[in-house]
Amino acid sequence: MKKIGLIGLGLIGGSFAIQARKYFGDAEILGSDHNPDHVDEALRLGLIDRPLNQEDFGDLHLLLLAIPVDAIEAQLTSFLDRIGSDGLVIDCGSTKSTICQAVAQHPKRSQFLATHPIAGTEFSGPQAAVENLFFKNTQILCEPDKTAPKLLQRAQGWFASMGMEIRHMDAVEHDKHIAYVSHLSHISSFMLGKTVLEKENDQSTIFAMAGSGFESTVRLAKSSPDMWTPIFKINKDFVLETLNDYIRNLKTFQHTLEQEDFEALYQDMKDINRIKTVLKGITDKNNTHGK
Amino acid sequence: MKKIGLIGLGLIGGSFAIQARKYFGDAEILGSDHNPDHVDEALRLGLIDRPLNQEDFGDLHLLLLAIPVDAIEAQLTSFLDRIGSDGLVIDCGSTKSTICQAVAQHPKRSQFLATHPIAGTEFSGPQAAVENLFFKNTQILCEPDKTAPKLLQRAQGWFASMGMEIRHMDAVEHDKHIAYVSHLSHISSFMLGKTVLEKENDQSTIFAMAGSGFESTVRLAKSSPDMWTPIFKINKDFVLETLNDYIRNLKTFQHTLEQEDFEALYQDMKDINRIKTVLKGITDKNNTHGK
Repeated sequence: MKKIGLIGLGLIGGSFAIQARKYFGDAEILGSDHNPDHVDEALRLGLIDRPLNQEDFGDLHLLLLAIPVDAIEAQLTSFLDRIGSDGLVIDCGSTKSTICQAVAQHPKRSQFLATHPIAGTEFSGPQAAVENLFFKNTQILCEPDKTAPKLLQRAQGWFASMGMEIRHMDAVEHDKHIAYVSHLSHISSFMLGKTVLEKENDQSTIFAMAGSGFESTVRLAKSSPDMWTPIFKINKDFVLETLNDYIRNLKTFQHTLEQEDFEALYQDMKDINRIKTVLKGITDKNNTHGK
Repeated sequence: MKKIGLIGLGLIGGSFAIQARKYFGDAEILGSDHNPDHVDEALRLGLIDRPLNQEDFGDLHLLLLAIPVDAIEAQLTSFLDRIGSDGLVIDCGSTKSTICQAVAQHPKRSQFLATHPIAGTEFSGPQAAVENLFFKNTQILCEPDKTAPKLLQRAQGWFASMGMEIRHMDAVEHDKHIAYVSHLSHISSFMLGKTVLEKENDQSTIFAMAGSGFESTVRLAKSSPDMWTPIFKINKDFVLETLNDYIRNLKTFQHTLEQEDFEALYQDMKDINRIKTVLKGITDKNNTHGK
């Protein structure tokens, strides 16, 4: 009987657990999490069959890592050390270059595949796991040529079964683009939340005056600091670059408003409106899997 | 037969037109818009019975203004000049103090009511009008004591019929709070959209790498510059204050990241997470009317 291991049983790990049971037939699904409550909950929800133990590593068919990026970076070498000769280790981290570097010289490098599934919600923990989280969403693979073809096929077959759209990307390019498209959104949202909370001591005022627009813009400020602190840490240089650009644009807006150049403000917003086209694509994609 | 007039037949005006027909029984619903296509569309959708003409002003029961704030500020005096002795003029602008000032000395001040319905979507035009837009949402009234009691009751009865939650607020306080809770969200979202569009020339990269988080945070960047330029213009001082606070918080985040004080970043995000409580209230409110 095949054994599938999952380390990290939150939203991503839990949702992959559901897909592992569907795809790998009668495989035994094993899981661990640094939070013992998550293991209990994953057992109760039927996401896993039993806890993953040290003794299981030698004959795992596949080991998926869905833990914070600093934990992946720190522990990946030791997981690869212990995996059996037919096992595949996959990580799901939101940054890719330092993780790839960490195992670049590892004798079992060909048993590792670096991925970033573009999927998520602002919720966390095993109870946030959902079956269709990955459907029609992008799965980014970095350095797939460094993974043994047989093991790469194993992973791709699984990802295809859940409807993921596979895209290859250079690890450094990935970290740069994702800083703009994902990491910056989280910072802008956290800082918006902070600015409003600092000013509005009276929550009932926020509650009464905030419409669905504020709700949407500040939604990511609910995200987990346990996940996001390591991301900002590991992708520091690119994140700082996006922050520089963002602050510069905000200052230009501020200056233009101070100068009362309303025609320029208007043209700027009109131009930014072309984000509609981009969002339409994302919305269509997300609606397809009923999120 | 009562006549109800609406100037501005977009999302807000159109949605109030639906509510006017429900509440004022067999009243004739008349409308105008600076965009003749909107008038045609409002007629076609049955939002209005016929165009609003100059001759109608004298015997309007109620005139609702749902046009950009600078247009309200510029035209309100002339509308009040022309309204008959039993008519009530209501404005729906997102800023309130300069509008109240504009008519403070008007001989018919008691026939005017300043409101701000906290409702909206990122869509615009008559086709965006929906029946339940205002249900369970806040309706802010400024200086209601300056409106004739009989006319104030007329408005409040109508707002209550559509399930709005009425709240009184000083006009300057309104403009200050709304700058934080609404206007700043729009700027942060517009500038996020700008930063990503500038960097990502290849839309397919944004499309592939952006998840629902980016979509949510940048949603307001689809908003209409025709509506938002006048809001930023008229509420300039408070908007600049919010921008100062926001940029300061972003710079602190940037500095903390540069200094690699990850414990401070973590604590900051953990603290901002209490926005969850506020959002929960907003979400419950919005879910009630099925948006």
